[in-house]
Amino acid sequence: MNVTTIIINAKYISIFCTPGVILFMLRLSLLGTGGMVPMPNRFLTSLLLSCGGKMILIDCGEGTQISLKSLGWGIKNIDIICITHFHADHTAGLPGLLSTIGNSGRTETLTIIGPPGVKSVVECLTVIAPITYPLEFVEIPIEGLRNYTHGDFTINTIWLEHHIPCASYSIEIKRSRKFNREKAENNNIPIKFWNKLRNGEIIEYNNKTFTPDMVLGETRKGIKICYSTDTRPVPEMIPFIENADLFVCEGMYGDDNDFEKAYSKKHMLFSEAANLAKEGNVKELWLTHFSPALVNPSEYIDFAKNIFDNVIVGTDRMVKELSFK
Amino acid sequence: MNVTTIIINAKYISIFCTPGVILFMLRLSLLGTGGMVPMPNRFLTSLLLSCGGKMILIDCGEGTQISLKSLGWGIKNIDIICITHFHADHTAGLPGLLSTIGNSGRTETLTIIGPPGVKSVVECLTVIAPITYPLEFVEIPIEGLRNYTHGDFTINTIWLEHHIPCASYSIEIKRSRKFNREKAENNNIPIKFWNKLRNGEIIEYNNKTFTPDMVLGETRKGIKICYSTDTRPVPEMIPFIENADLFVCEGMYGDDNDFEKAYSKKHMLFSEAANLAKEGNVKELWLTHFSPALVNPSEYIDFAKNIFDNVIVGTDRMVKELSFK
Repeated sequence: MNVTTIIINAKYISIFCTPGVILFMLRLSLLGTGGMVPMPNRFLTSLLLSCGGKMILIDCGEGTQISLKSLGWGIKNIDIICITHFHADHTAGLPGLLSTIGNSGRTETLTIIGPPGVKSVVECLTVIAPITYPLEFVEIPIEGLRNYTHGDFTINTIWLEHHIPCASYSIEIKRSRKFNREKAENNNIPIKFWNKLRNGEIIEYNNKTFTPDMVLGETRKGIKICYSTDTRPVPEMIPFIENADLFVCEGMYGDDNDFEKAYSKKHMLFSEAANLAKEGNVKELWLTHFSPALVNPSEYIDFAKNIFDNVIVGTDRMVKELSFK
Repeated sequence: MNVTTIIINAKYISIFCTPGVILFMLRLSLLGTGGMVPMPNRFLTSLLLSCGGKMILIDCGEGTQISLKSLGWGIKNIDIICITHFHADHTAGLPGLLSTIGNSGRTETLTIIGPPGVKSVVECLTVIAPITYPLEFVEIPIEGLRNYTHGDFTINTIWLEHHIPCASYSIEIKRSRKFNREKAENNNIPIKFWNKLRNGEIIEYNNKTFTPDMVLGETRKGIKICYSTDTRPVPEMIPFIENADLFVCEGMYGDDNDFEKAYSKKHMLFSEAANLAKEGNVKELWLTHFSPALVNPSEYIDFAKNIFDNVIVGTDRMVKELSFK
C-alpha cells in the first residue's frame, strides 16, 4: 500500500493516509501516573484521547489541568469527561478544569459521564467555579453504558470492584465497512441508491427492501482503548478488554509481596494487570496509578513482563498514536 | 549582644538565640505566585507560615499540596487554613489537601477560617474526600476577625473589594513584655507575686490590686505579615498593613497601561500594590497572583520599584525567615 504521511501541523494534527484517502488517527496521552496524591514529579492518573478534533478525558484529579497545559493539545475541545469513580484523586481537578475550559471560550455542551450521582457531585464541586457553558450529565446505568457515541468515539463501561462504584471504560473508534461494488451489482441495487445505502440508510423500493449490508464489505477492525482503575481484577474485565489495542490499567503495587495491601485496598499488583492483559489478548499494556510509596515504579517491571511481554510502566504525558490498519 | 545560632535540624527548625533565651522565629513560603489557573511553572498563590511547630496556610488553590510537597516542611501540622474568598483558584485544592492531611495521620482539629458560608463550601467540596479528623470553622464576621489567636499566632482580617466577599489577613507573632525587676520593686510588689503578674494574672492582696503592668517593661515589637489578594486597593488596607515586616500583595498586572483591566476585574497593578506598601510603611513587599498573560512578571518590577524600593516579584516557594529584633 502506498502510504504517505502528511504533517499538517506538527503540534496538533498528523494524518497518515493513502493519497486521496484520509484515515482516522487517534492520539492519546497518559496525563499522569500517580495514585492517591499528586506529586511534583508524578501527577494523578488521567487519560486524554483526541480524534477528529474532539477530545475525551478520563478522570480528572487535582493537577490534571496543569498536565494538560504541559502537553499543549489545547483544552477547549474536551467534549466528554468520563469519571471512573468519585474519589478525590479522580475528581478534585474538575472545578478548576471546567472553569478553565469556560475561560478558554467554550460555548458548546460538555458531557460528563460517571457513576450514579455524577450530576450532584459535579454541582457540589463547582460551587466555587460557576460554569458558563452547558453541562450534560450521563449517569452510567446499573447494566453499564452500552455503545454511547460521540463523533467517532463509542464508549462502553463495565463495573469494577472498588470501595465505591467504579467503572472501567472502553473507547472505540469504529471503522466503517468499505463499499463493495461487486456485491451491490450482484444484489441488483440500482446505482441511485448506492450512496444512501453506503451511509446506512434502508431503502424501500418497488416492494423490495435494500439494506446497507447489501452494498458493504466485511467488518473492519477499528481502534480500541480500555482504561481500568481503581479495582481488584474481576473476570468481567477479560471479555471487556478483549483484543484492545491498548489497555491502560492500574498497578498500584509492583511487588507480588504486596498482595495483602492490594487485596485490602482493592487495588492491583503489576502481575495481576499483566494477567488480565494476557487473558484479554490485548496488544499493549500501560501500567499506571502507582502508590506514592513506589519511588521508581519501573524497577518492578519484571513482575509484569514475566507474564505479558508488551508492557510499559507509564510515565507522565507519554503519548501514543494509533491509526487504522 | 552575644547571639548564637543553633541549627537543630537544617531542614525543619533553626532557632536563633542568646544563650539561655530561645527567640521565636517565623518561617514562611510563598507556595505559588499565579492567579486564575495553575501552570506548570507557576502554581496558584498561597502562603505557608510556620512557627513553633504550628503552621498556617492562607488560600489553597488546585496544586497547593503539590507545592507543599516540593517545599518539604510537612503537611500534618497545618493547624489553620485561612481562605480569602471562594473563587476556585483559592479553594479548589481543599479536598485534596484535607484528604492528604488525614492520610498523614492527623487526628487533631484543623480550623478553617473564611468568609460567611465557609462551612457549607468546604462540606460541598469534600463530598469526594471524607475527612477523618475534626474540622472547625470560623466565619469571619461582618466587622472582620479581631485578634483570633492560635498558639503564637494572632489573626486579624479586613474586607477587600472584589467580585465576591474577600478578606485580607494579618498574622502577627506578638512578643511578650520583659519582666522589669526595678519597676516591680518600685511598685512594692511582694516577690511571691512576681511570677503570676509576669504571666498576666491580676492579684488582689491586702486591699491592693497588682496588675501585670506594674512588673512589665515596654511593649516590644513582634512580627507582622499581611496578605491581600484579590482586590482593588482600598483605603482600609493602609492602617491594616501598617509597619508590617512583610506585605504579600497581589499584582495581577505589571504594566500601568493595564489599569482598565485591573479596574474592571477588581485586581491590582504592581504600582498600586507599591503605593499601598509605601503608605503603610511596610518593610518589604512581595508581589504575587500574576495574570497568566504575564510570562515573566519580573520584567515589570520598575513599575513598583519607582514607588517602593524594597519590592520582590514573587517566585514559587520563595522562603523568608523572620525573628524578633
